[in-house]
Amino acid sequence: MSEGTLALLGGAPAFESAVPVGQLYFPDWPDYVEAMRGIFVRQYYTNQGPLVRELESALQERLGVRHAICVANATIGLMMAADALGLRGRVITSAFSFIATSQSLTWAGLDPLFCDVDASSHHLDPDRVEHALRQEDVSAVLAVNLWGDVCDHEALSRLAARRGVPLYFDSAHAFGCEAGARAVGGFGALEVFSFHATKVLSAAEGGCVCTNDDMLAARLRNIRSSYGAGAPVHVRRTANGRMSEAQAAIALMSLKGFPSILERNRALFAAYEAGLQSVQGLRLLRPAAVNRTNYQYVVCEIDAGVFGLDRDQLHAVLRAENILARRYFYPGIHRCMPYREQFPSAPADLPVTEVLCSRVLQLPIGQAVDEAAVARITAVVRAAQTNAQLVRAVLAGQGEVHA
Amino acid sequence: MSEGTLALLGGAPAFESAVPVGQLYFPDWPDYVEAMRGIFVRQYYTNQGPLVRELESALQERLGVRHAICVANATIGLMMAADALGLRGRVITSAFSFIATSQSLTWAGLDPLFCDVDASSHHLDPDRVEHALRQEDVSAVLAVNLWGDVCDHEALSRLAARRGVPLYFDSAHAFGCEAGARAVGGFGALEVFSFHATKVLSAAEGGCVCTNDDMLAARLRNIRSSYGAGAPVHVRRTANGRMSEAQAAIALMSLKGFPSILERNRALFAAYEAGLQSVQGLRLLRPAAVNRTNYQYVVCEIDAGVFGLDRDQLHAVLRAENILARRYFYPGIHRCMPYREQFPSAPADLPVTEVLCSRVLQLPIGQAVDEAAVARITAVVRAAQTNAQLVRAVLAGQGEVHA
Repeated sequence: MSEGTLALLGGAPAFESAVPVGQLYFPDWPDYVEAMRGIFVRQYYTNQGPLVRELESALQERLGVRHAICVANATIGLMMAADALGLRGRVITSAFSFIATSQSLTWAGLDPLFCDVDASSHHLDPDRVEHALRQEDVSAVLAVNLWGDVCDHEALSRLAARRGVPLYFDSAHAFGCEAGARAVGGFGALEVFSFHATKVLSAAEGGCVCTNDDMLAARLRNIRSSYGAGAPVHVRRTANGRMSEAQAAIALMSLKGFPSILERNRALFAAYEAGLQSVQGLRLLRPAAVNRTNYQYVVCEIDAGVFGLDRDQLHAVLRAENILARRYFYPGIHRCMPYREQFPSAPADLPVTEVLCSRVLQLPIGQAVDEAAVARITAVVRAAQTNAQLVRAVLAGQGEVHA
Repeated sequence: MSEGTLALLGGAPAFESAVPVGQLYFPDWPDYVEAMRGIFVRQYYTNQGPLVRELESALQERLGVRHAICVANATIGLMMAADALGLRGRVITSAFSFIATSQSLTWAGLDPLFCDVDASSHHLDPDRVEHALRQEDVSAVLAVNLWGDVCDHEALSRLAARRGVPLYFDSAHAFGCEAGARAVGGFGALEVFSFHATKVLSAAEGGCVCTNDDMLAARLRNIRSSYGAGAPVHVRRTANGRMSEAQAAIALMSLKGFPSILERNRALFAAYEAGLQSVQGLRLLRPAAVNRTNYQYVVCEIDAGVFGLDRDQLHAVLRAENILARRYFYPGIHRCMPYREQFPSAPADLPVTEVLCSRVLQLPIGQAVDEAAVARITAVVRAAQTNAQLVRAVLAGQGEVHA
């Protein structure tokens, strides 16, 4: 397609079938069948079975943390985390994240206090957090590690310690990353990973809470299984956060294949860098605060004035080519229920978040693409820029496009 | 063992390996492999995939309900249900249930108002509910359908309607049951099933919320996928309650095999009836309010004065034989956190629940036993009664036994 006509302008789509953004790496079929046969032979299907225990040990060793507590999904992990930390009232967090970050607080009976993010890194701005910690009564800081990168955890750690509140992390995007030569997973009071199918380590659905705090770990285990498989530690309430053996089996195989997944992602990311380096008005985010990333996302920021199209217009071009680029995070959490009613002034209070929600676009990386596909995707982006005027005219004719 | 010595008294255990109480029916291996291969070919692993949609259609047809909304587990289903119903304040429920019933309310920001149960049926006593509805400010009634039976849903329905509050059901124990020739699943505002591995329909982990209310269904779907796969309906908050394709595959196969599962359970239950009919002081519960049960549980009530041993003593005898009988529900929800602090007077206010928590014992049924095993289990029970005096002496020598 690199030389052809954009699909939006009447050409054939660059891809015959839809190309998703998620990682979607899955184990080899024979390995999978063997693992599942083991579960059938043992007839042990869920609730802290042998594969979950094996996965937890492997994660603990890999991440260098005392406790890796596997859960049904990261959302329930974040909900359990807020409860296990015994939080009350408000928690500082970012509105530039997947909605589960804040929803976990709401389920735990807490309110988010949104702080704006840094325009360059997309992560919580320590200056804004410092200001909020000085002005407001909060019980914790829930920082988000985005895009295979990490927030300014050292600054946030100092600020939280000075105020005497815990700092914990939604690290759904950051499995396999290292900051200061330390594996993400061991920072703060705890960290929560997602092992969703779209993530670099997959259990189809799943997640994990990591901590070095023995008492927190005991509480988390007790919450996870409705008191069913934990020490009799006082907890505020319990849930069903159990990971099944089938989930653990997939994650274990995903962990085994992790080096090759990373290597493949790295090559795909390099192909994006090569294909997009000449594109004016498009900034490809390069994880800057880690010494090792997982290349989980390819994130672009579109400066409409320079690029010639705004983010939504480029998104429409890509969708027409069957490239399922995602406007992440759109709308921002502060514009979703219940927060848009709870905090009507948030759009004004979060100017950087507002801008990013209108400019950021995620491109496909992972199992669904190879280097040739990336070359076609970057060619589409370049062609969109070249044909910007025509694209704008066609879209204006169609009315607003929100695919 | 029927003629041998009880293991507690020095004999060999009746079973070489542990016999669990749960159903633990699983599909045939070739069927399972074929289903999983389909998932791999489609590369669609979670979030309302084709198998989840197929399962939901099959459940809707079987149960005669407009909406069957599959979820990650029943606990999250109950939490979502409380939110989707828009409840506030207190909800009448039973403390004689699995703890998730009440914990779902606590996560949803609600408080349980425990009403006592009927001594014969073990289900909510309508007289107590009527009294509470008259005296207290409540926003709903959450009734539990226990042991493959149902509560007095007609009386509760009248009472709730008169007071203008919704009635909904924790039907974790009641999939496949019929009351008044209507399938359980279509009663009240909604019903929540569990498809845990121990249940008669299994997804290893899983559950389902059933309702005939289109607006409720739209809210539930929206809550389930973090706004990700639902109509844009106003909801208070969202969660990750997604069922994965692998879970749906197991449940579909379980549904296909359901007639034979029921038939097998029925025969096992009949074997228990035959083996225990002569035992004085042991009441085997027969589901009385349904015209069709699922035989999911074999529940006995032990009258220590007549039987010769109390429930905990019989439990110790069975455990020594490798029969993993369960003291369900022990302790009662009202004696678990946070309720024992929240409602210190509950033990006095719930005299029937208190008695049942000390007298009820669950025996193994399902995949792990056959009729010969049931004959050995009932022989152990009879031998325990015959040797009651000796058993009491041995246990007294060991100190209190709480296996």
